[in-house]
Amino acid sequence: MMPNPVLERFGRPFRLGLAGGAPPSLIGPVHRTASVMDQRFQLVAGVLSSRPERALTEGRAAGLAEDRCYASVEAMISGEARRPDGIEAVAIITPNDSHARYVRLALEGGLDVMVEKPLCNDLGEALALADLARRTGRAVALTHTYSGYPMIRDMRARIEAGEIGQIRLVQVDYMAGGLATRVEDAPDAARRWRLDPAVSGPSLVLGDIGTHAHHLVGFVTGERLASVSADVGTLMPGRRVHDIAQVRFRLGNGARGRIDACNAAAGASNQVSLTVYGETGHLRWEHRHHGRLVQANLDGDIRIIGSGQPNLTDMAKAATRLMRPGHPEGLQEAVANLYCGLADEMLARRGLAPAAATLTPSIADGVAGLAFVEACLASSAAGGAHVELATHG
Amino acid sequence: MMPNPVLERFGRPFRLGLAGGAPPSLIGPVHRTASVMDQRFQLVAGVLSSRPERALTEGRAAGLAEDRCYASVEAMISGEARRPDGIEAVAIITPNDSHARYVRLALEGGLDVMVEKPLCNDLGEALALADLARRTGRAVALTHTYSGYPMIRDMRARIEAGEIGQIRLVQVDYMAGGLATRVEDAPDAARRWRLDPAVSGPSLVLGDIGTHAHHLVGFVTGERLASVSADVGTLMPGRRVHDIAQVRFRLGNGARGRIDACNAAAGASNQVSLTVYGETGHLRWEHRHHGRLVQANLDGDIRIIGSGQPNLTDMAKAATRLMRPGHPEGLQEAVANLYCGLADEMLARRGLAPAAATLTPSIADGVAGLAFVEACLASSAAGGAHVELATHG
Amino acid sequence: MMPNPVLERFGRPFRLGLAGGAPPSLIGPVHRTASVMDQRFQLVAGVLSSRPERALTEGRAAGLAEDRCYASVEAMISGEARRPDGIEAVAIITPNDSHARYVRLALEGGLDVMVEKPLCNDLGEALALADLARRTGRAVALTHTYSGYPMIRDMRARIEAGEIGQIRLVQVDYMAGGLATRVEDAPDAARRWRLDPAVSGPSLVLGDIGTHAHHLVGFVTGERLASVSADVGTLMPGRRVHDIAQVRFRLGNGARGRIDACNAAAGASNQVSLTVYGETGHLRWEHRHHGRLVQANLDGDIRIIGSGQPNLTDMAKAATRLMRPGHPEGLQEAVANLYCGLADEMLARRGLAPAAATLTPSIADGVAGLAFVEACLASSAAGGAHVELATHG
Amino acid sequence: MMPNPVLERFGRPFRLGLAGGAPPSLIGPVHRTASVMDQRFQLVAGVLSSRPERALTEGRAAGLAEDRCYASVEAMISGEARRPDGIEAVAIITPNDSHARYVRLALEGGLDVMVEKPLCNDLGEALALADLARRTGRAVALTHTYSGYPMIRDMRARIEAGEIGQIRLVQVDYMAGGLATRVEDAPDAARRWRLDPAVSGPSLVLGDIGTHAHHLVGFVTGERLASVSADVGTLMPGRRVHDIAQVRFRLGNGARGRIDACNAAAGASNQVSLTVYGETGHLRWEHRHHGRLVQANLDGDIRIIGSGQPNLTDMAKAATRLMRPGHPEGLQEAVANLYCGLADEMLARRGLAPAAATLTPSIADGVAGLAFVEACLASSAAGGAHVELATHG
Repeated sequence: MMPNPVLERFGRPFRLGLAGGAPPSLIGPVHRTASVMDQRFQLVAGVLSSRPERALTEGRAAGLAEDRCYASVEAMISGEARRPDGIEAVAIITPNDSHARYVRLALEGGLDVMVEKPLCNDLGEALALADLARRTGRAVALTHTYSGYPMIRDMRARIEAGEIGQIRLVQVDYMAGGLATRVEDAPDAARRWRLDPAVSGPSLVLGDIGTHAHHLVGFVTGERLASVSADVGTLMPGRRVHDIAQVRFRLGNGARGRIDACNAAAGASNQVSLTVYGETGHLRWEHRHHGRLVQANLDGDIRIIGSGQPNLTDMAKAATRLMRPGHPEGLQEAVANLYCGLADEMLARRGLAPAAATLTPSIADGVAGLAFVEACLASSAAGGAHVELATHG
Repeated sequence: MMPNPVLERFGRPFRLGLAGGAPPSLIGPVHRTASVMDQRFQLVAGVLSSRPERALTEGRAAGLAEDRCYASVEAMISGEARRPDGIEAVAIITPNDSHARYVRLALEGGLDVMVEKPLCNDLGEALALADLARRTGRAVALTHTYSGYPMIRDMRARIEAGEIGQIRLVQVDYMAGGLATRVEDAPDAARRWRLDPAVSGPSLVLGDIGTHAHHLVGFVTGERLASVSADVGTLMPGRRVHDIAQVRFRLGNGARGRIDACNAAAGASNQVSLTVYGETGHLRWEHRHHGRLVQANLDGDIRIIGSGQPNLTDMAKAATRLMRPGHPEGLQEAVANLYCGLADEMLARRGLAPAAATLTPSIADGVAGLAFVEACLASSAAGGAHVELATHG
Repeated sequence: MMPNPVLERFGRPFRLGLAGGAPPSLIGPVHRTASVMDQRFQLVAGVLSSRPERALTEGRAAGLAEDRCYASVEAMISGEARRPDGIEAVAIITPNDSHARYVRLALEGGLDVMVEKPLCNDLGEALALADLARRTGRAVALTHTYSGYPMIRDMRARIEAGEIGQIRLVQVDYMAGGLATRVEDAPDAARRWRLDPAVSGPSLVLGDIGTHAHHLVGFVTGERLASVSADVGTLMPGRRVHDIAQVRFRLGNGARGRIDACNAAAGASNQVSLTVYGETGHLRWEHRHHGRLVQANLDGDIRIIGSGQPNLTDMAKAATRLMRPGHPEGLQEAVANLYCGLADEMLARRGLAPAAATLTPSIADGVAGLAFVEACLASSAAGGAHVELATHG
Repeated sequence: MMPNPVLERFGRPFRLGLAGGAPPSLIGPVHRTASVMDQRFQLVAGVLSSRPERALTEGRAAGLAEDRCYASVEAMISGEARRPDGIEAVAIITPNDSHARYVRLALEGGLDVMVEKPLCNDLGEALALADLARRTGRAVALTHTYSGYPMIRDMRARIEAGEIGQIRLVQVDYMAGGLATRVEDAPDAARRWRLDPAVSGPSLVLGDIGTHAHHLVGFVTGERLASVSADVGTLMPGRRVHDIAQVRFRLGNGARGRIDACNAAAGASNQVSLTVYGETGHLRWEHRHHGRLVQANLDGDIRIIGSGQPNLTDMAKAATRLMRPGHPEGLQEAVANLYCGLADEMLARRGLAPAAATLTPSIADGVAGLAFVEACLASSAAGGAHVELATHG
């Protein structure tokens, strides 16, 4: 069992409210399970629908008490504020265009926040939120799921330790198949809003999965993207939202890279692969085999480093529940690791733990993601010309 | 989200008490997470140590209220019986030699039971427990973890549907490395009791992992083992407990099979593989890639069937939380599926749901496991002679 | 055994001369083995070095008669022309800058030709050679090795048959590690000429491996590249030749694609991967598992199609010697398939077989390869601007 | 290029005659290609059929001169003996029951021999052949193909070097699917003789593939099988020949092991896997990925050791033509390695090279194989009782 600093220092889990995630959402149940898995949080309130009746039905199905099933985020925040046992944090997993408003409400209500990526749909808005977060002193964590996987953290730790030397080339493919057919003809609820640019933002593919890929590059290499050359568009004829982004980039240290992100890749199953080439070898991770890392060295040796093994880095061990070889964890545990980081941050901000950088993505990562989206769109509009990414904060 | 019949029909999760599982146990945290993951159970009481002080510390670390941290199973059962909100079920994850006593106490206390395999250390005892369970009308579920994996259930459903025709050959390898070194020289708590035959039973390897392999064969083929020819012993020189079992068997339908189970396989990481050959093809599952099933047909086609894909059998879909391709679950979800089955059974026995066979292993599987252990030991003692397995019940 | 139309119709194998390939060349022995493997050719003469003594020693080590070990291509062509049993074809596997001259000599000498890629170092020169070939009526085959693998041909046949529908996206990575270190400091003979741009051509990475990737795209999709946006340069600081090319492209049908080609990828082992996404699924091939093809469909099914299996396409079967499942062939057989195609072409041109398109790359593919190289360099020089590829012939 | 001691010391390749291998034989073309691949042998005579006309047609299709296409082995041996350029060795790839007679004829004719496994169908006969070979001083090599793969040799070298310590457990599965259907109903020529016990021997599965598995165990561990407990029979109802053998064994050093060999495994593609567990780790090889070896260590590290890589053992490098990472060889090269070993032996026996143990299986391995077959059959007849293997020579 991983030690639980929240129980140890705070005496009980933090109380969490949830905005969004009713069926057929995939991430709704994921957040519900992940947030409570390690007893950093207990889920006590929620807004599972804006229709009062459905909010009640779905809230109770999620195990909430009747009087804490709300029909709006505003109602939840004000209602909970009046309770002695009100929520201390909120998880926002609603459609993209509402993120900014709900994060703002939460921060103004004194709550800490977990918000699904992208932080919002607009860089200016993101900067304003970052500013507000700074002023309120509350934490904003971003659900970049992949950074919660132990072996992604192992990759980061090994690169940081210089195991493959100076970074020279990074390759990310994020191939998903959810939009490989004409879903426009009969979208379910989870897809309907994504197909509406007014809701899903200026570039569906970039906001939905491109920012995941972008975050991974920075997370494992420790370098920021300096410039991009991008071609963003659609594979599916007649589609109104982007479903493909082909991006070349340079990192701050001059290394090269590429991101291919696509939601219309027929037959692909949310396949993320990440390869980082350095001076003396490379490291490769694939979502499909998320519990292992491949390290190939100049001498011909290929090492498979596996989850739960004694040769993991401390950073990976700290993110592992089943520290015994051959006992698989999954995506829910990855998200749970992000919640653990948010809880650590909340303890620190309450003076109950020393301040320390957590690995959970923060609002600064959200701002960087939006800057990436905007630079890619600018480059694509300019025929693939190199566009530099501004730095913020 | 999978529908939750417990909340729907019973109005709240069942209340669960836990016996065992303090650090460095691996399965302690697994049971704590798995039992509550789907809100079929809430964990409200526990015996995490027989030393009162440690029972309290570890119980609170597990999120229990102070007055429900007990120092003995007896105390928990009687204490909880006096409460209006007392436990309705108990999970027994203590060392093997205590299983029989605690299961008996639980049944006599009117509780339903989840117990770690092996059910107990002796076939006679197992039969007595089965008899007691029958008389009390309570459910006893057995933690044969692997049968909770969606793709194992997919394999079962496909064999049942005749996708590979009549079964002809079954091969199981369960290779683990935990005893590959002289752990006897400095065992941790989790290994200490396993190395003592008085506690771990007549054959460590057979009780610990051999019964898992045995259960898998029956679970996926729907056939029982009719006879065995076994060679059981030790790979590690000077060891007092068995760490290797090599078993050939025949199924009830005349098919052949083998089980190799070993806890002393250096470099192995709890690697379970299961291949079933039928008339028209074979199915193969490996724990290392637990989210997929390989189906090879006579025409040369090899199909990879993956977790979360639309082409899963209904049986597999019903055991899957993340019904979207490429979103991995893990071992905790497999155990959670077993708890869901126990809860279904508890509903049925309370008249809140129609009686229906669950997929969660039952006390009959526990009895069959002990019969397997005894037959293997008899065969091995007789130089590998064929020994028939008695049928019980 | 594949039927041998050369023995059947011509009565004996064609007589082949070899230019180049002395140690430490890798491809020297490959061509020697591949050309004779199927008895389409017999190797009877060669120029293994320009130094007479070494030409003799290495020639004899390759099994040549003493009087047919020549010290120059000119000498071989004229010497053999004087013999009644002189060579009918020549294989040119010398450094890139000599290809044009030797191909010209061979054509003018009435010989058919197998030449290693790239055809030459300059598009103008390539066009002139194509013109010469047309005038002489001799065949020029190009050693794009990968197109000789049965499973690449299977991919082509399946795409042609519409198994994945209209093509939408193509991804190729060709990652090699031969130049991942400062080989400049102590190059062996095989690397020395590659590091000299005057010999290896305007862009080492594009000529060496980029043209392989380019050819594969056209070979399997049946579409030509219409335009590219490229960034070509060096990963290794201070290197004089290109070792990385990052290319985005559009096919004639509007589909998108990318090629990443790199010879400086530390830890990479000549890893080529090729994925083609269509409307209804995708096909993926990796050199590392060259004997299988992965086909993923919209319904979630993933098929592994394996070499030697009965479910291969006829195109793949015709390129397979070991038509029995699970009997691996290798790279030498792939090159041998190219020689079989050249022999078929030679038979046809001699009126001994009906004219038919072979799958072996031709001089037109060589011209297209050079056009690709030039377009990539032009795009890279223009900051990644889209550059259209001219069509020739 | 591997150095060629035959050309160097003997001045030309040895002259080889071939007995057997006409279509639809798979191994006919394999032997023809493999024997000449490295110019240790040239194929100059053959008996491809016992019908004179077909012997001529098939012989010419195999590239033989008309006057060296014979219709019986006797005729070939006597005919060639009368020529100044007659054969010096013969490859016998005829049905099993003829091996003994042809090996005897060859040895008596002063020829060296390559013979397909099993050496013959009877242990007594095998011992007589070994005696004859000793008296004639000729070499008899056995085509245990798998021992020719570089990575099997790498495994042997690493075990010999102590990389995994003392051997404790060996597991071999040889799963083939050629007899998974009722081939009896319409057998092709290659299967017809196999289905006749008078031709294929006392146990088809053991002679056909069981001896391969048996040889691999000894080849990589350096230990002989001391005893077996076996269950040999049929998976296919009504079959007259064995298609399944399940064998447990002990090695000379006390280690345990198992062999499962089956030709009736539906959907299996000649899948051979071999795992050797030692004190400090294990090594695993699979035919499907024959170019790599997996080494798993106690510390959790898993190494993939790949063909052509610089970290190979010398033993593996010496068996590799394409000594550059990522350039695959295949089965033909494995058999070619066996021919290289036979040629080395022939040089040594002619005083042209120092005597040295080759890695190519010898007649002693053939004898050991027959002893294994007989012991397995004896054990199976005795209900799986342990049967010790006699040692010979």
